[in-house]
Amino acid sequence: MRPDELSIIDHHFRPLAGEGAFRLLDDAGRLSLSPDWDVVVTTDMIAAGVHFLPDDPPETISGKALRVNLSDLAAKGARPLAYTLALGVSPELGDRWFAAFADGLRRDHERFGISLLGGDTISLPEGLAISITAFGLAPKGRMVHRFGGSAGDALYVSGVIGAGTAGLAVLKKTTGPWDDLPPERRAELVRRFRLPEPRVPLAAALADFATATIDVSDGLVGDCDKLAVASRCSAEILVETVPFPSGLNVLHDEHLLARLLTGGDDYEVLAAVPRENETGFRRAAHAANVPVTRIGMLTPGSAETEVLLNGQPLTLSRRAYVHGRFEWMA
Amino acid sequence: MRPDELSIIDHHFRPLAGEGAFRLLDDAGRLSLSPDWDVVVTTDMIAAGVHFLPDDPPETISGKALRVNLSDLAAKGARPLAYTLALGVSPELGDRWFAAFADGLRRDHERFGISLLGGDTISLPEGLAISITAFGLAPKGRMVHRFGGSAGDALYVSGVIGAGTAGLAVLKKTTGPWDDLPPERRAELVRRFRLPEPRVPLAAALADFATATIDVSDGLVGDCDKLAVASRCSAEILVETVPFPSGLNVLHDEHLLARLLTGGDDYEVLAAVPRENETGFRRAAHAANVPVTRIGMLTPGSAETEVLLNGQPLTLSRRAYVHGRFEWMA
Repeated sequence: MRPDELSIIDHHFRPLAGEGAFRLLDDAGRLSLSPDWDVVVTTDMIAAGVHFLPDDPPETISGKALRVNLSDLAAKGARPLAYTLALGVSPELGDRWFAAFADGLRRDHERFGISLLGGDTISLPEGLAISITAFGLAPKGRMVHRFGGSAGDALYVSGVIGAGTAGLAVLKKTTGPWDDLPPERRAELVRRFRLPEPRVPLAAALADFATATIDVSDGLVGDCDKLAVASRCSAEILVETVPFPSGLNVLHDEHLLARLLTGGDDYEVLAAVPRENETGFRRAAHAANVPVTRIGMLTPGSAETEVLLNGQPLTLSRRAYVHGRFEWMA
Repeated sequence: MRPDELSIIDHHFRPLAGEGAFRLLDDAGRLSLSPDWDVVVTTDMIAAGVHFLPDDPPETISGKALRVNLSDLAAKGARPLAYTLALGVSPELGDRWFAAFADGLRRDHERFGISLLGGDTISLPEGLAISITAFGLAPKGRMVHRFGGSAGDALYVSGVIGAGTAGLAVLKKTTGPWDDLPPERRAELVRRFRLPEPRVPLAAALADFATATIDVSDGLVGDCDKLAVASRCSAEILVETVPFPSGLNVLHDEHLLARLLTGGDDYEVLAAVPRENETGFRRAAHAANVPVTRIGMLTPGSAETEVLLNGQPLTLSRRAYVHGRFEWMA
């Protein structure tokens, strides 16, 4: 039996309220801003059976809902400030579920320096949908966009590509090279699918050195296409240089490679960095403790991103991952 | 067959993008602000079968999703600026549905001076959920809160109370005095349930003259309780003075009165106005062309709002309306 909305707010969400939230006792929150900053605003909704499994732990569900938004802020060079939460839940969820859900948020408050500005909890006839709108601060006029890159800029990606896809495959018991990994490595892949690692510490380096950026959430290749199109360029990715999850021997399996390069849920940052900024960017990323790898470059033209393995185009049956129930169920 | 997300954005949502939205071609939007203003932020989610009927016209569904948020901004004394939209839809919705949905938003853009800052469209296994986060501007430090009222302040309500409840009853074919209304008046009640009238033009009058305000969305009595508690007062409402939809003869029917006074979907503003501000407030509301009616006052103490009819407490079986599927289905 679900507790009522006021009880949920009192017990679980009020402790998360930060500056300008008026302890969630008003109709709205307030952002008071210095003129030196722009507010960067992003919104992402995630739903059970689409972005997470209905029986995933509540604390990773809430953490994922928040982190997919923090990933967008980081990619835009903004540091996190606050967020609003809209939660649509079916009536069978009980108090323990909400406590764990709030706990997942609380942990990330400390880690990422963010607080809850306001929210809404509603009943859904069934299912579970969470919509978060997150606010970040970027120095005035310094937000990084998808546009702004130039032919010749190097392309860097943070972290590894394909951990989310592999983690989902482990959860779905789809056979693959992950079956040969030790259990703790498989668990790590699942954890990365459930709880992505937003590259918040990289934001300042991106604002200082990148000309164009995108949050990689729907597949590296398709998201690279988007950055290149917005920057009026083409791009090439050298597959041998792309960082994949350690222990996965993927370079011999073109089908698998294609899948990881176009799979969802990476939540890494793809950045265009001009040659003269590369040293500074690598140094700043290292200082921020975020691994970054050069995987290709922006090129002249307007064609789709060339994905090259041993100098030959890799065959891709799709370019992007569509988060949808049907793909999930496949 | 649902068109893909990029096609939906291209055809229907990109034309709604305003300043700072980068034509919806980036991961995030940007608010650039003057230091003279605070950003007031509110979020509300609505879902099919809970806040609207699944077969309601798409243009009123989107309009309601936006307007319930504009109502919160207005109550806080803020003028609308921009909003983000997260839309969870099942796969069977087609292009015409999205066109009508976007059209409902476009009309309100012109009317309320607001534009789309960003959004997200996802697949839901079933159902329909819309989450909007809206941003308004209030002069620095002048946002109006639920707290701030004092015993002796008059209570004013905008518009009429009970039109949403009556409109829902007409839709549900629940018998009541609305059955005796002419068809065009019944249609008007349905229209008010589907498409509330946010009191945007009243925002400045509230900021100038009210000490405490609340958006009446879950029943007048319960929302009055919330304002009174936040202001550390009690309150009394004189039922004879409450404005109900014209043509509804309700004062003889205590059960019906109780239902309208605690029903949902009014989206009017309840405001505490000190005696010395009443003339100014009424004049400003008149100039803004928003009807306001004095319905009671804040009183000393901490008891629940007294709801008086002919000087006697009205019997109430509930104090607030809970938007939930079960009540819907009753």
